[in-house]
Amino acid sequence: MNSLFANRIREIKTHKIRERLEVPSDSGLISFATSLPAKELFPVKEIEEATREAFNRWQDSALQYSQSEGIFPLREKISQRSNKKFMTKYDSNNICISTGSQQGFDIVGKLFINDGDVVLYEPPIPLSVLMAFSVYGVKFIEVAADEHGMLIEDVESALRMEKNVKMIYICPDFMRPSGKSWDIERRKAFIETILDFDVVVIEDITFSDFRFEGEHLPTVASFDDKGQVILIGSFSRIFCPGVRLGWIGASNYLVEHIRKMKCSSDLSPPTLDQHILDCYLRVYDIEEHIRKLIELYRERRDILDSAMREYFPKAADYSKPEGGLYTWVKMEGLNARELLEKCVEQRVAFVPGDSFFSQGGGDEMFRLSITSLPVERIRAGIKRIAKGMSILGFHPPTRVTINPQAYLELDKDKQKKVLSL
Amino acid sequence: MNSLFANRIREIKTHKIRERLEVPSDSGLISFATSLPAKELFPVKEIEEATREAFNRWQDSALQYSQSEGIFPLREKISQRSNKKFMTKYDSNNICISTGSQQGFDIVGKLFINDGDVVLYEPPIPLSVLMAFSVYGVKFIEVAADEHGMLIEDVESALRMEKNVKMIYICPDFMRPSGKSWDIERRKAFIETILDFDVVVIEDITFSDFRFEGEHLPTVASFDDKGQVILIGSFSRIFCPGVRLGWIGASNYLVEHIRKMKCSSDLSPPTLDQHILDCYLRVYDIEEHIRKLIELYRERRDILDSAMREYFPKAADYSKPEGGLYTWVKMEGLNARELLEKCVEQRVAFVPGDSFFSQGGGDEMFRLSITSLPVERIRAGIKRIAKGMSILGFHPPTRVTINPQAYLELDKDKQKKVLSL
Repeated sequence: MNSLFANRIREIKTHKIRERLEVPSDSGLISFATSLPAKELFPVKEIEEATREAFNRWQDSALQYSQSEGIFPLREKISQRSNKKFMTKYDSNNICISTGSQQGFDIVGKLFINDGDVVLYEPPIPLSVLMAFSVYGVKFIEVAADEHGMLIEDVESALRMEKNVKMIYICPDFMRPSGKSWDIERRKAFIETILDFDVVVIEDITFSDFRFEGEHLPTVASFDDKGQVILIGSFSRIFCPGVRLGWIGASNYLVEHIRKMKCSSDLSPPTLDQHILDCYLRVYDIEEHIRKLIELYRERRDILDSAMREYFPKAADYSKPEGGLYTWVKMEGLNARELLEKCVEQRVAFVPGDSFFSQGGGDEMFRLSITSLPVERIRAGIKRIAKGMSILGFHPPTRVTINPQAYLELDKDKQKKVLSL
Repeated sequence: MNSLFANRIREIKTHKIRERLEVPSDSGLISFATSLPAKELFPVKEIEEATREAFNRWQDSALQYSQSEGIFPLREKISQRSNKKFMTKYDSNNICISTGSQQGFDIVGKLFINDGDVVLYEPPIPLSVLMAFSVYGVKFIEVAADEHGMLIEDVESALRMEKNVKMIYICPDFMRPSGKSWDIERRKAFIETILDFDVVVIEDITFSDFRFEGEHLPTVASFDDKGQVILIGSFSRIFCPGVRLGWIGASNYLVEHIRKMKCSSDLSPPTLDQHILDCYLRVYDIEEHIRKLIELYRERRDILDSAMREYFPKAADYSKPEGGLYTWVKMEGLNARELLEKCVEQRVAFVPGDSFFSQGGGDEMFRLSITSLPVERIRAGIKRIAKGMSILGFHPPTRVTINPQAYLELDKDKQKKVLSL
């Protein structure tokens, strides 16, 4: 029956490792692979209360179909929050509610990509986005970047040289999974460049709320006067993923077509979920809740960072991300899949970097999620990964205990030699 | 920016009339167009109770991502119910939970249809199914049918003659929207025929629970020993659509691929919704609830039928469906879109038949939904449609009051003449 499948089945890159580890059944395994949000911080009591309120207020209407684009009061709240946080100029009509941001990516893929059409992106790119666009026969083309964001001249030359560039995928806040951010100049230069071309930009803001330090920057969409940028947002990380809601923000013209694709995909988003979130936003301060999440995740990031400094070889290259929910590690000469094998024997896991590249690459890299592990398991996990590394010949920094008395008795030259041991 | 859209946007047949009427804002309009289930029969109190139970039992886990195919206890309950009601031989692994049956159709379309691939079907076909498959570039080919179901020799010759037939869409119980059913012999003959071909069958059982009279028949899937039939089921009509859940039943081999497509579409179905339904099924008897729905809908169907007999012209051809949620009307010489225009002036609406044909046809037909209107509005609505018909020159049966005294005074020949007036 193999011949029956559409070609797109071949494009689906669902890594075995992901499938095995996303919801770990082995409780002894320390998984940095799963990017599940910390469920101990879900506002369970508040959601229960919001649910009661949803039933009280809406009764049987909370259980009926909703419009394809979602219920009005929630779209209104999302547009207002987006204007405040992401500096957009939306009203409720610019919002289409989706069942999570993954459906947002699926819908824009469905709406724009013909077989062979090009999407420009800066690698690494989230596996889920690769997956969503791949089923529509996309041709991914990489654009080079530096530490400030995509290289504008490379974006422009790709737009001039490549045929059928339909979309550019960007994630200027804490890029998934590398954690990099674009600075404000690059954001402005990018939008000025792309406005000359017939192309849409998919701006991924699913992690944008999680800034641990530094200044919150305006979205690329906020500089867009022509309606070419589509925002993809999510409530999975700032609220919870089990009440399954994300959103797409777009110009009136585009949102009309997005709505049609949403209708073809599943008619309408879950109505009860929408009313629960709407009642939650009516009664509680989600920004206050996000501040708590930021505190927790910042602490986990810090512990992860200090554990890596303590246990990882010097060759390991990672930077402490200013925000977002991942840390990205590179190490010259590493084969991350080989390391993963050794690590699984040590009962620790991560996602190897090649999962986030569409055309090869990433072999020397891997992703660590900071969301799902409590502090004490983070240190233990990093220690186990370091052990896996040392089995492969990447040794941690040598640690020598010096006898202070004996040290002080040495002459200055010998003291120096001992310290540079 | 029009040039940017994928070709599939052109295939989306979202009728303006549907969009305007599915959620009617004009409360004076009597809409037989919307197929919204009767919300006055949603088990609101029970769902509230099941929601409390879901929070008590699962707490923060009810708000986390679930597996792509859905939570185990619900898949198990669905498989058991399917085996009992639809005579399948499933276990929990054969079930993939979707966000409504619409996503079921979207996923099988995504999994099987390459641009230009063929789907065989018997018209009329639900607009939502047309929409779901069309975005993947399907070529629909009609198969002829009689009152017992698809003509087997036509199915076989289409399978032999047409290249790239990937799927056959069937709805053997109360076909949407025509209300026709297949008899048991036709079901058996169909499966015997298709098992010789490399093709999958999509069996739509979304309305199968609503049998008003006659014997419940086994699904085509129940005769399938080779795993070629995929069942698409829904909880929107037997539970509620706002807790947004449907399911796909398939062989182990196929379900593995279905799960991947589900993952690419939106990662996982809404977890809270799944636990609410699971707790409902644990505590309450859904079959008892369905019996109540059947009683209500049967009454509405009967009122609709008797109102049509009273007010519609003799030329109107409709049969009382044994089950399902629609009545289908044909009238020679009618232009259903023209009638709809007149009817909207009378503040009544329906869906014109051409919405349910992919290659033209259906102009003389229209669909009336029996679910969403209370009894008193059904009669009033049919009267308004009859008025619309009479404006177009289709007159209702003449009604004459006879004076019995005068009648009896006539001789026999004259009496006969009067009665055949």
